Amino acid sequence: MSATQTNKIDITKAATSKINEVDFEKLSFGAVFTDHMLECDFTNGEWQTPVIKPYAPFLADPSMRVFHYGQAIFEGMKAYKDDNSDIWLFRPDENYNRFNKSAVRMAMPEVPENVFMDGLSQLLKIDQEWVKKGKGNAMYIRPFMIATGTGVIANPSDDYKFMIILSPVTSYYSGDVKVVIAEHFSRAANGGIGAAKAAGNYAAQFYPTTLANKEGFQQVIWTDDATHTKLEEAGTMNVFFRINDTLLTAPTSERILDGVTRKTLIDLAKSEGINVEVRSVLVSELVEAAENGSLKEIFGAGTAAVISPISGFSYKETYHELPKIENAMATQLKDKLTNIQNKLAEDTFGWTVKI
Amino acid sequence: MSATQTNKIDITKAATSKINEVDFEKLSFGAVFTDHMLECDFTNGEWQTPVIKPYAPFLADPSMRVFHYGQAIFEGMKAYKDDNSDIWLFRPDENYNRFNKSAVRMAMPEVPENVFMDGLSQLLKIDQEWVKKGKGNAMYIRPFMIATGTGVIANPSDDYKFMIILSPVTSYYSGDVKVVIAEHFSRAANGGIGAAKAAGNYAAQFYPTTLANKEGFQQVIWTDDATHTKLEEAGTMNVFFRINDTLLTAPTSERILDGVTRKTLIDLAKSEGINVEVRSVLVSELVEAAENGSLKEIFGAGTAAVISPISGFSYKETYHELPKIENAMATQLKDKLTNIQNKLAEDTFGWTVKI
Ligand SMILES: Cc1ncc(COP(=O)(O)O)c(C=O)c1O
Ligand SMILES: Cc1ncc(COP(=O)(O)O)c(C=O)c1O
Repeated sequence: MSATQTNKIDITKAATSKINEVDFEKLSFGAVFTDHMLECDFTNGEWQTPVIKPYAPFLADPSMRVFHYGQAIFEGMKAYKDDNSDIWLFRPDENYNRFNKSAVRMAMPEVPENVFMDGLSQLLKIDQEWVKKGKGNAMYIRPFMIATGTGVIANPSDDYKFMIILSPVTSYYSGDVKVVIAEHFSRAANGGIGAAKAAGNYAAQFYPTTLANKEGFQQVIWTDDATHTKLEEAGTMNVFFRINDTLLTAPTSERILDGVTRKTLIDLAKSEGINVEVRSVLVSELVEAAENGSLKEIFGAGTAAVISPISGFSYKETYHELPKIENAMATQLKDKLTNIQNKLAEDTFGWTVKI
Repeated sequence: MSATQTNKIDITKAATSKINEVDFEKLSFGAVFTDHMLECDFTNGEWQTPVIKPYAPFLADPSMRVFHYGQAIFEGMKAYKDDNSDIWLFRPDENYNRFNKSAVRMAMPEVPENVFMDGLSQLLKIDQEWVKKGKGNAMYIRPFMIATGTGVIANPSDDYKFMIILSPVTSYYSGDVKVVIAEHFSRAANGGIGAAKAAGNYAAQFYPTTLANKEGFQQVIWTDDATHTKLEEAGTMNVFFRINDTLLTAPTSERILDGVTRKTLIDLAKSEGINVEVRSVLVSELVEAAENGSLKEIFGAGTAAVISPISGFSYKETYHELPKIENAMATQLKDKLTNIQNKLAEDTFGWTVKI
């Protein structure tokens, strides 16, 4: 290992690379990590010098707060390599800002921009061989923060660890995605943490999703917990509905994550002349549209899958199959967006940022 | 270290004890741990042989599921030493059953009774010097389970770690506890995980509690998230209200933890001839009772603090101070319960179990 210091980041490089052990044609999402990781500790009320070092496990005390009280947040973003081998991020400021919003909601310290952004750039440069060119290929970036203070008392931790790990990916979902609309379970409460990318939100979804899986559905469309009449998110994605030629999606709220893909698609669709309505969409409206044939598409939107088309939904034991249509908006928008992300089309929006 | 095997538990004892470094007169809650811990891994769909070994940190992969998706549950229970130096647990079956209920809700495997119960007994025997006699003294027991599988994909983990750690304690809360009734924030949703002792529930409370702290309140009384009209829990405790001579507490639900102290106090109060009503208590009712003088007491109930009397509450910017009364039910019930727990009074209920 060789140790160097750049821009206040301590860098220790791995002696050898694992890259040749990886089959980039057969990547399972989020399973393989690159040679290095970024680590920055918050102790004594201050962020310490960030460190880039070989990806490796670290020592965790059994009483570490994250294990007991769930103080943990994360982000999910992607980097892309263009034909000149330059590496690009997509709207990274959105992820950075959302990360710190999540931090505030979970009573965790905000991460300084230089730690997050410079740390990420440096890390990507060091592991640049792992970022592959080509449509759909990307480096999935996982910044996260956990409470490392010890002691089993339900108070915010004094100590935290911020990390960035990198996982090369191709695409996320495959096959038919059928969903069930939640009639009993929910993922978020009014006045709760649904709008934060907090670890606890995800574990809460596993059991209801497992029940849905057993009945042949891949995901759950979450509804508001108070009335279960409003459609809010699909699995861990924001959700869009196409009724006739209008795209509908719920406004963000305390219960709905302010997704970067969602806001990007809204702008992209509008620029394509598509009519977009951001408003609460009722379950009753969806059922009616399915029955009268005006419901053309449903799709999830998120960084991992970009767009995940949904082929049908179940509600109150009735399954509504969506029509197979030509020129689906889901396909068109996904194509446009991944072309911009992978630098295969011009980015007239200024969304892509070179590292 | 010497290695022995008892009842299918692998035991490795610490070479030396840390007990002489501990000031048992000045214990801060949950901060000091005993010499040993129990660890049992779930891999390949099976629980492995439990291990008791010296308390120590373990290696954690940065992509461990618990850090990203919050699959983590815990229990909180206590052991007590009587005058004969026998060690007793209090209603341990309640904690064991609740632990496995939490496991199911968080899509985690249930822990076998012998791992949990025999593991706990063995561990307490090995660290028995750490359990101190005397009223209020106890060994706080923290069984917990975390998802140890790796990979940043939001699915239930395949691997888990169950652990028990022990922390000697005296009492929990001290001083005046003033609370604020939640008008905006909430800790649980309908169809959510509020009834599970899931790590994520606790981090979600930190920020609203911190805001309350800044205004001079020690805790928040949580209300239902949909209407904020029903009183549900106080901080991380169940909550009781005494109006005239009747004790009121909300029924357990999906949003309210089924507390062992709560159900114990209901039985204990009834056996003392106190009128107990288990029903929804409205904020409006509480305010009215405070204004007309019929509200005599409010107290939190939980394993850590046993009973934590509340001296006043704030609602819509108005602070309602409770009367200082003689012979408070909180004091009487706490006294009766801790006497039973510490084996200083006869346990006619059969709640205490010798290990
Ligand atoms: C709950 C939830 N909703 C929506 C999204 C989509 O957000 P983004 O487009 O920023 O990835 C995510 C993250 O992927 C999420 O976790
Ligand atoms: C949210 C919550 N409510 C209530 C309680 C009280 O439960 P118990 O009396 O079983 O300790 C606890 C745990 O202490 C808790 O975490």
